[in-house]
Amino acid sequence: MKVGVIGASGYTGGELLRLLSGHPKFNLNYIAAGNNAGELITLLHPQLTAFSGQKFSQTNTTEINSCDLVFIALPHGESAKLISQIDARVKIVDLGADFRLSNVKDWEKYYGGVHAGSWLYGLPELVNHKEIAIATKVANPGCYATAIALSIAPVLADIDTSDIVVVAASGTTGAGRSAKVNLLGSEVMNNLTSYKFGGVHQHTPEIEQILSEFAKSAVKISFTPILAPMPRGILATVTAKITTESNLDSLRSKYSHFYLKSKFVSLLPANQMPMTSAVLGSNNVQIQIAVDTHVNRIVISTAIDNLGKGAAGQAIQNANLMCDFPEDLGLHAVGVR
Amino acid sequence: MKVGVIGASGYTGGELLRLLSGHPKFNLNYIAAGNNAGELITLLHPQLTAFSGQKFSQTNTTEINSCDLVFIALPHGESAKLISQIDARVKIVDLGADFRLSNVKDWEKYYGGVHAGSWLYGLPELVNHKEIAIATKVANPGCYATAIALSIAPVLADIDTSDIVVVAASGTTGAGRSAKVNLLGSEVMNNLTSYKFGGVHQHTPEIEQILSEFAKSAVKISFTPILAPMPRGILATVTAKITTESNLDSLRSKYSHFYLKSKFVSLLPANQMPMTSAVLGSNNVQIQIAVDTHVNRIVISTAIDNLGKGAAGQAIQNANLMCDFPEDLGLHAVGVR
Amino acid sequence: MKVGVIGASGYTGGELLRLLSGHPKFNLNYIAAGNNAGELITLLHPQLTAFSGQKFSQTNTTEINSCDLVFIALPHGESAKLISQIDARVKIVDLGADFRLSNVKDWEKYYGGVHAGSWLYGLPELVNHKEIAIATKVANPGCYATAIALSIAPVLADIDTSDIVVVAASGTTGAGRSAKVNLLGSEVMNNLTSYKFGGVHQHTPEIEQILSEFAKSAVKISFTPILAPMPRGILATVTAKITTESNLDSLRSKYSHFYLKSKFVSLLPANQMPMTSAVLGSNNVQIQIAVDTHVNRIVISTAIDNLGKGAAGQAIQNANLMCDFPEDLGLHAVGVR
Amino acid sequence: MKVGVIGASGYTGGELLRLLSGHPKFNLNYIAAGNNAGELITLLHPQLTAFSGQKFSQTNTTEINSCDLVFIALPHGESAKLISQIDARVKIVDLGADFRLSNVKDWEKYYGGVHAGSWLYGLPELVNHKEIAIATKVANPGCYATAIALSIAPVLADIDTSDIVVVAASGTTGAGRSAKVNLLGSEVMNNLTSYKFGGVHQHTPEIEQILSEFAKSAVKISFTPILAPMPRGILATVTAKITTESNLDSLRSKYSHFYLKSKFVSLLPANQMPMTSAVLGSNNVQIQIAVDTHVNRIVISTAIDNLGKGAAGQAIQNANLMCDFPEDLGLHAVGVR
Repeated sequence: MKVGVIGASGYTGGELLRLLSGHPKFNLNYIAAGNNAGELITLLHPQLTAFSGQKFSQTNTTEINSCDLVFIALPHGESAKLISQIDARVKIVDLGADFRLSNVKDWEKYYGGVHAGSWLYGLPELVNHKEIAIATKVANPGCYATAIALSIAPVLADIDTSDIVVVAASGTTGAGRSAKVNLLGSEVMNNLTSYKFGGVHQHTPEIEQILSEFAKSAVKISFTPILAPMPRGILATVTAKITTESNLDSLRSKYSHFYLKSKFVSLLPANQMPMTSAVLGSNNVQIQIAVDTHVNRIVISTAIDNLGKGAAGQAIQNANLMCDFPEDLGLHAVGVR
Repeated sequence: MKVGVIGASGYTGGELLRLLSGHPKFNLNYIAAGNNAGELITLLHPQLTAFSGQKFSQTNTTEINSCDLVFIALPHGESAKLISQIDARVKIVDLGADFRLSNVKDWEKYYGGVHAGSWLYGLPELVNHKEIAIATKVANPGCYATAIALSIAPVLADIDTSDIVVVAASGTTGAGRSAKVNLLGSEVMNNLTSYKFGGVHQHTPEIEQILSEFAKSAVKISFTPILAPMPRGILATVTAKITTESNLDSLRSKYSHFYLKSKFVSLLPANQMPMTSAVLGSNNVQIQIAVDTHVNRIVISTAIDNLGKGAAGQAIQNANLMCDFPEDLGLHAVGVR
Repeated sequence: MKVGVIGASGYTGGELLRLLSGHPKFNLNYIAAGNNAGELITLLHPQLTAFSGQKFSQTNTTEINSCDLVFIALPHGESAKLISQIDARVKIVDLGADFRLSNVKDWEKYYGGVHAGSWLYGLPELVNHKEIAIATKVANPGCYATAIALSIAPVLADIDTSDIVVVAASGTTGAGRSAKVNLLGSEVMNNLTSYKFGGVHQHTPEIEQILSEFAKSAVKISFTPILAPMPRGILATVTAKITTESNLDSLRSKYSHFYLKSKFVSLLPANQMPMTSAVLGSNNVQIQIAVDTHVNRIVISTAIDNLGKGAAGQAIQNANLMCDFPEDLGLHAVGVR
Repeated sequence: MKVGVIGASGYTGGELLRLLSGHPKFNLNYIAAGNNAGELITLLHPQLTAFSGQKFSQTNTTEINSCDLVFIALPHGESAKLISQIDARVKIVDLGADFRLSNVKDWEKYYGGVHAGSWLYGLPELVNHKEIAIATKVANPGCYATAIALSIAPVLADIDTSDIVVVAASGTTGAGRSAKVNLLGSEVMNNLTSYKFGGVHQHTPEIEQILSEFAKSAVKISFTPILAPMPRGILATVTAKITTESNLDSLRSKYSHFYLKSKFVSLLPANQMPMTSAVLGSNNVQIQIAVDTHVNRIVISTAIDNLGKGAAGQAIQNANLMCDFPEDLGLHAVGVR
């Protein structure tokens, strides 16, 4: 399998390269980066010693069309532009937002501009693997969306789905690699601060979309994102009113069953809490739940690596499924910490 | 005014010393620390150069009784034991939890052991200053309790008070200075993790107590605390269903009026978010609010310094009021960042 | 005293405002910021609540000339341009490099462009206070230069001054507030990396200049700077061959005597090491020394706050001396930590 | 190959487990941890999901003797005690210090107690691989020792070996996982501080030993260690007087040749500096050199992961060589960052 990475100079691109360099089936032979074409890969990703001496290529549709599969990790709006020039036979996992939303109004409200259409939403734990296997184009979910949707999906039947409250904090790589004053180390260290405050984060509609499809009824979330003083990781706290007679044991058992066959998602033992440091560099998802009886709420705490299961790891998981490889091929089950 | 600090070797104790060293009226002449008695103050608090050469004293009731006012910063249970030996005339601000809760069952549930009684709850923005002025004993609120109660108090009449959802993250000094593996730098850096998960944090009853008194009706909160990779600061995200016809403007105006005369609490301008780094070392509270119309919720983001307004700063604010000094005497209005 | 701050939007500018807001004699009535003129001060310095509602002014020589004293915190080259339009009577403390070097060739080698001249080098511990008192223009030393010169000055007669080796690490605010990818939080956290490597850091000549003047013989240093994952603080490790019969006691005693009257610099007790966290927000300098007998070297470890004694604090110390105020007026002796 | 890890509960033990879980030849079937025997591995190493459900075993010589190879990661003094009960046929890589030093006086000075003897010092880049291949017992170098020895070894003939100056900073995992107040996150964040100050760090003699053997003449170093606010990584700055006519080009060429066949150590291109974040989780060593002509010194900057090449990675590299496997088998060439 000839594979390519388009937009390889960002943090997500770097993580794709890292994971693909150890993948036994994907033969990475095209690595493109718009503005950084011609530069040494290791100048931007100094950890990627396996790529020493190699340079970023120009983004070029001829090269893309010579690949069997490409990962696109571009800012939103960019992959939509590119897509018309790519042969239908080329499998694509798009890590951007362009093809995630099926609702045109949602796109216009949260992103603006022309809606490019929608592809299969590649959250493998919530989507039939056979659908992914036959798809040639997959929209890879957003990092927050992944953490939040996986947190609550197993118990949608037990909660008030019209009022799910989420507060989730992300490390700074989630904000990308652009040179902005508010992302300087001097600004982010010692600091917690909210942003896109008041329900305006663009992952909101994709979370509601996938959960509504899954629940077969409208799901609504209140989502407050926070920037945390660490490079990687998302910790999502999700809470909702319990509407059934469920108790902690019955709810725990729903999670256990739901993720029974999952290679990456697990409900932790009762005495262990999810930690972002424990999923660093992995495709793992750690979940813990509690029932706060005095307010009758389920509370869920979930940790992922925003660049792993939140982006590059999940993209490779999708690509594996699209190619009939084992879901976890080339994906380190073990975090670095 | 002769003042003393009991329990001066912890982080809260250190911050009390720092603030008191610059206070024009409080003459700090007794600095006690149980296990660290006899050690140089600067060995434990190397930043406190004003105390160079001085040592921690033994905790001794004769010395305490020679003071006009003492701050007690001991683990819970300790100040209750001490109190019987202190003369009634000595003013006390207790930074521990022993006298915060009026409900015996709450005490037993969240702390265990014998309930020592309750004192005036010294959250000056929610309590009549005249009450504080005549009190000789004040229970200084918990750090989370301060951030959360101040976040929502102005709009209790506009929300569903039976279902306030709070997720709040604290820097590591909030967990104290005891040598525990889970508080090691190697563990906390790069890490966000929840603790006291599922509504069991001991600040829950004091928040509900003060807000219920204030609202004149039962207030209930779902509170999830998080440990964040930074030494100081709390960022609280508080959200509740709006039950009135309020909109963002009318709610903003309630905060503005509520904190109009406050020297420390302020609603930020619309385009500015609270940052824990912006309140570092100060007694300030930064609040921002939004209305998420698609779920009809008010969302509040609030930043404090857990050692400042969350502990030592507020204790001095209370002491100032108890002594008829200006509320902000000796309290730096300006953070360090 | 009417004072102004030119270049108030950067980190050094912000620290000047913070310190000046609590200064009893300097009446801060002109706050200028080139590109940020017209913006709210608290938007850039959210910690400076004392300046709420106030905006940055344009940089304007009429306004400057209405001040008795101005602090200039501009990138190098900028104050030299400004200076010709400022009345001779206006006292100036220049926190930039423009007037630090007396040697034209040094200027050309390390900075490039036209050498603007040189002013009194305001390192008060190494310069006669009377000279500062009569100066109207003072060049405030660089942050590294301050830490390094104070580290070794007391023992210049005891060491091989032709071969002083320095490795010093700085927090990220030392690199300023410009939006550069290499200063992003995602890049600097978890990272130590050297820069300006191989003796090319521009503080090298000013350190050699002040120490050579002080030693009355040529001093040479090998200086390697490092960027550290924290916002503030410099830890300098300075080592040199001992050339006399000195031992640890005699060398300690030289430091003690040298800094006997200093309000800010101190040799720590033998069992305590300098910590950058212990000088945070203060004008303090912590020094510890050792003698490594097996290589016959003195080793000195010194901590300062790069924005405090390394910039804004020292500038105010100089300004105090220029105005015959007590050296430490308005300078917090106590760090925040 | 049946392999065991003794002392698996510490940070080094955890990294051994992580790396061994992906090793194609070493079959990890004995995982022992003294005090933590009986606990779930994932409770202490939550990132090691591959070990879910598995518990630490007791340290037991019968079990050890059933292994073909064991890694011992115990505090110093502990492996010496254990060794007499281990069969001679069991290959051992000892990650502790017990068998690193050949000189009894050095042992007594830096560690105290009885000297247990010395084994082959397993720094594969400086030791004949054939010697390692026939060794059954190898002493794995210390983390600082690895970084420092590799920094200067290629140019020992070009420098004054009697006066090598080293300042090196380490992340906090280097200090182990014991609960000490000075290692709390609240203490280490925002902080740089030296320790074991004045030439007393216990890695000093092993660095001098290996370099002296290598140079065939006495090598002396002045070494100042620093604790840095990050969990992992060492950045070593090494400098020495140049005694030959070498220039930057000739010195660069020595490093290039010296590490030509090395799979892990590389001299970076001229415009790139070593970063601890770039070697995170890998066995890589990044080196950059400069010549500071104005003091005639070579300056070397070197980054390693203290738990990777500085401990667990190098131990596996040694084990590979002892078993005639490719040197880099199971060692990720690529860092995480």
